Amino acid sequence: MNRKIIVYVLGFVIMIEAVLMLLPMGTSLVFHEYSHGAVYLGVAAAELLFGFILTRMKPDNNMFYIKEGAVITALSWIVMSIFGAMPFVITKDIPSFTDALFETISGFTTTGSSILTNVEALSHTNLMWRSFTHWVGGMGVLVFILMILPMTGGSAMNIMKAESPGPEVGKLVPTVKTTARMLYLLYVGITFREFVLLVRFKMPVFEALCTSFGTAGTGGFGVKNDSIAGYSPALQWIVAVFMILFGVNFNAYYLMVTNKADQAFKMEEVRAYFGIIGVVTVIMTANLYKFGWGLLTTLRHVVFQIATVMTTTGFATTDFDLWPTTSKMLLVMLMFVGACAGSTGGGIKVSRIVILIKSAKNEIERFIFPKRVKTVQMDGKGVDSSVVHSVLVYLALFTLIFIVSLAIVTLDGKDLTTSFTAVTATFNNIGPGLNMVGPTRNYSHFSHLSKYVFMFDMLAGRLELIPMLVLFNHVTLKELVLPKKKK
Amino acid sequence: MNRKIIVYVLGFVIMIEAVLMLLPMGTSLVFHEYSHGAVYLGVAAAELLFGFILTRMKPDNNMFYIKEGAVITALSWIVMSIFGAMPFVITKDIPSFTDALFETISGFTTTGSSILTNVEALSHTNLMWRSFTHWVGGMGVLVFILMILPMTGGSAMNIMKAESPGPEVGKLVPTVKTTARMLYLLYVGITFREFVLLVRFKMPVFEALCTSFGTAGTGGFGVKNDSIAGYSPALQWIVAVFMILFGVNFNAYYLMVTNKADQAFKMEEVRAYFGIIGVVTVIMTANLYKFGWGLLTTLRHVVFQIATVMTTTGFATTDFDLWPTTSKMLLVMLMFVGACAGSTGGGIKVSRIVILIKSAKNEIERFIFPKRVKTVQMDGKGVDSSVVHSVLVYLALFTLIFIVSLAIVTLDGKDLTTSFTAVTATFNNIGPGLNMVGPTRNYSHFSHLSKYVFMFDMLAGRLELIPMLVLFNHVTLKELVLPKKKK
Repeated sequence: MNRKIIVYVLGFVIMIEAVLMLLPMGTSLVFHEYSHGAVYLGVAAAELLFGFILTRMKPDNNMFYIKEGAVITALSWIVMSIFGAMPFVITKDIPSFTDALFETISGFTTTGSSILTNVEALSHTNLMWRSFTHWVGGMGVLVFILMILPMTGGSAMNIMKAESPGPEVGKLVPTVKTTARMLYLLYVGITFREFVLLVRFKMPVFEALCTSFGTAGTGGFGVKNDSIAGYSPALQWIVAVFMILFGVNFNAYYLMVTNKADQAFKMEEVRAYFGIIGVVTVIMTANLYKFGWGLLTTLRHVVFQIATVMTTTGFATTDFDLWPTTSKMLLVMLMFVGACAGSTGGGIKVSRIVILIKSAKNEIERFIFPKRVKTVQMDGKGVDSSVVHSVLVYLALFTLIFIVSLAIVTLDGKDLTTSFTAVTATFNNIGPGLNMVGPTRNYSHFSHLSKYVFMFDMLAGRLELIPMLVLFNHVTLKELVLPKKKK
Repeated sequence: MNRKIIVYVLGFVIMIEAVLMLLPMGTSLVFHEYSHGAVYLGVAAAELLFGFILTRMKPDNNMFYIKEGAVITALSWIVMSIFGAMPFVITKDIPSFTDALFETISGFTTTGSSILTNVEALSHTNLMWRSFTHWVGGMGVLVFILMILPMTGGSAMNIMKAESPGPEVGKLVPTVKTTARMLYLLYVGITFREFVLLVRFKMPVFEALCTSFGTAGTGGFGVKNDSIAGYSPALQWIVAVFMILFGVNFNAYYLMVTNKADQAFKMEEVRAYFGIIGVVTVIMTANLYKFGWGLLTTLRHVVFQIATVMTTTGFATTDFDLWPTTSKMLLVMLMFVGACAGSTGGGIKVSRIVILIKSAKNEIERFIFPKRVKTVQMDGKGVDSSVVHSVLVYLALFTLIFIVSLAIVTLDGKDLTTSFTAVTATFNNIGPGLNMVGPTRNYSHFSHLSKYVFMFDMLAGRLELIPMLVLFNHVTLKELVLPKKKK
C-alpha cells in the first residue's frame, strides 16, 4: 500500500478544513462571540501546521489504486471529524468528546442526528460551523481536492468513486476535474437560490444561511429546538421543495444546464424518485385526512415529511411519531430507499432499488420464459451484470452491517422501535427515527458504545460501506500501522 | 404450458389428502366424536371423487419443465389447504372460512400461527388433523408422489426442487426416488423416537402424537392453550432437543446412516447451525441470569426459545415478549436466519446466510487484494457463481415481498412491533411474534386482507418464494385460465 500518498492527501484535507473554519470565525465577529472565534482560530492554526508537516513528506509516486482510494476516503472523514469536533469541546458547548465527535460526524455525513437537548444554547459561531459541516459533507472534500491537486485521471477516479454517493459517477464528461467543477458550481448555485428565497420570505439571514446549508447537504441540523416547525407555511414549502431538489441526481441538472433537458427528464431514476414521492404523498394524505387539518395543511406536512425522510435530510415540522402506523411505516420504508444516486442524499438510493426490482422481476421471468434471455435495462441501455452483482452485494453488506449494529445497540435495553429506527436513521444518514429518537427527541441517552456504533454507521452509510469496511479490515490496519517490510 | 399434467398431478394430490384424513377419522373413533369423524369421511369421499375425475384426464406426455414444476407445487399446496380447511368449517370448530384456511395453510406450511383463542375447545379429531398437517407439510406431499408416479427423473427433479427447503437437494444419490424414500424413512423414524420418549416421560399418548407431529414438521401447533409450558422440565427438554434435531440438514442424517458420519460432522452448514445455537445460548443466558431463575431453568428456557425460533417451530414454554430487548432482538434475528436447508424448518436458511457472509467477505477482500481471484468455498468446494447469484437474488426477493406485505398489514393500524413481527413470523414459518402476536396471543384480530397477506407469505416462505411468484404472475395466470391458442 502506498502509505506516503495517503499521508500526503490527508495533509491537504486537514489544511482545507482549517480554511473552512474561516466561516465560523467570521460569524464570531458578526455576533461578537470573540472567545469562540479565537478557539476556531487556534484549531485552524494547529491544523495548518499539522497539515503542512504532512504535505512536506512528498510521496515517491502519485499513483494509487482502489485500495488507497478507499483508505484515504475513510481516514480523511474520520480525521476531519476529530479536528472538527475540537471547537465544540474547547468552547464547552458540547463538553464530552464522544458527544462532540458524534455531532461532527453526524454533520459531515449529512445525517443530522443530534445529542443536543437544547440547540439554542449553542453560540452562533458553533451553530454556523455545525450547519456548515453538512454543506461541506454534502459534496465531499476529496472531490474538491481533485480539482487542485495534480494527479492522474485514473487514480483520482478512485477517490471520487469512493466518496460520491451512488453506483456510477463521472461518466458525463471526459475528465473528472471538469465534472467536479461543474457539480460544485451547481451545488453552490442551488444553495444560493434557496438562501435568497428564504431571506425574501423573511427568515433572518443567519438562520437562512444555516438552513440552506442543512438543506443542500440533506443534513438536517436546525438552529431552533423545534427545527422548521416554527417558521411560516411559505418557508416550510420552500425548504420542502429544495430538499426534494437536492435529492435529485445532479447529472440531471448537468444535462439541463448543457441544454439536454429532454434527456434529464427521461432519466429513469429521476422519474422513479418523483413517482415514489407522488404515490406516497397521495396515500399519506388520505391516511392523515381524518386528522381534520384541512387539505392544504395536511399536504404541507405530508410533502415536508416525505421530503425530509426520503432525501434523508431530517428537518421536522411536526412529530410524525404521532401519525398512524401506515404513514409511519411508509416513512420508515422511505428511509431505506433514500434519494437519487449522485445527489447529496443517503439511503440505499433509488437507482439501486430500481435495479433490485428489475432483476427480481427478471429472475421470475426466467422461470416463465426459460428460453428468453433478458438483461436488466436502465435508461434504455443494458445494465452490466457486474453492476447488478454489486447492487446485490451492496444489499447483502448493508443487511449484515445493519444486523450487527442493531445487535450491539439493543444492549442498551431501549425498546425495539427505538433501537431499530436509531440504526435506520443513522445508517441511512437521516437524523430522527421514532419513539425515543423521534423528531422531538435526540440521541443523548445512548451509551458510549452505541454512540460509536452510530458513528461507524453514519460514516459507512455516507461513504457507501466499502471504504469503512476496507479501512477496518485487519489486513489493512496491519499494513497501515506496522513498519513496511522490505521487498 | 403443459396444463394437462398439472391437472393430472393435482388429482393425485387431492386423493392423497383423502387418504391422509384416515388419521382424524381413526381419532374420532377413539374419542367417540362420531359426528366429526363423519365430516372427515364426507370430505375425503368428495376428494376421492374429484381427484379420480382429474386423474382420468391423462396427459399426452409426462414431461414438464421448471415452470410446470413451480405451478404444480404452488397450486397443490393451495388446493390441499382449501380442502383441508373444510372439516374445520363444517364442524363449526372454526366457522369462518378465512380463519379455517389461515389455520390450515399455517398447518401445512409448518408455520404454527393460529387464529384460535382457545385451542382446547377443539375436538380431538380436529386437533389431530391440525397437528397432522404440520407433519405432512414438513416433508411435502409432492415428494411422496414422486415415489409412486411414473415420471422421468429430470422432470421429477423440478418438483422436488420447488418443494424442498434449501438451495440444493438430491445430490447425494443417483436417483430422486431413492433419496425421497430415504428421507421419508428418516423422517418417520426420528418422529417415532420422539413420540416414544414423550410417552415414556408421561405425556398422554394423544398429546405426544400431536406434539411429535408439530416438532417433526417444525410447525408448532400445540394442543394446550399454554403450548408446552404446562409440561414437566424433562418433556420440555425432549421437545427442545428434537426441534433442534429436525432443524438439521437431513443430508447429515443420510450420511450418518450410510456410515459417513465423519462427513456429516464436517458439513459447514451443520457446524454453523450448532455454532449459532451455542453462541446465542451463552449470550442470552447471561442476559437473563439477573431474572434469578437459577442456571438450569434459565438454560432450559433459553435453549427452548432458541430452538423454537431458529427451527421456526413456534412452541412456547414462556412469554419471551417479556424478556429484555437484547434477548428479544436476538430471537427476532434468529427468526430470519432459520434452520438448515434440507430440513423441515423455514427462514432464510443457515446455508444462505453462510454464503451471504462469505461473499460479502470476498467482496471486501477484492478491494484489499485486487490481484487475488477467490471464489466462495463451502464444504471445501468452490460454490458456483450462479448459486451465489441465486442466493443474492433470494435475499432481494425476500426483502421486496417482506416490504410489500408489511405495507399492506400496517393498514390495520396495529403498532410497528406487532406488524413487523407478524410478517416476520408468518413469512419465515415460525408462528408467534412479539406484542399482539406474542407467544400468548394469536392472529385473530387482524383484518381479512392482512390474513390473506399472511397466507401468501406462509406459502411463499415454505415454498421458497419462486413457485408462488411464478403462479401469481399475470402471464402464468393467463396461460392457466384462458383457452389454449392453436399453434
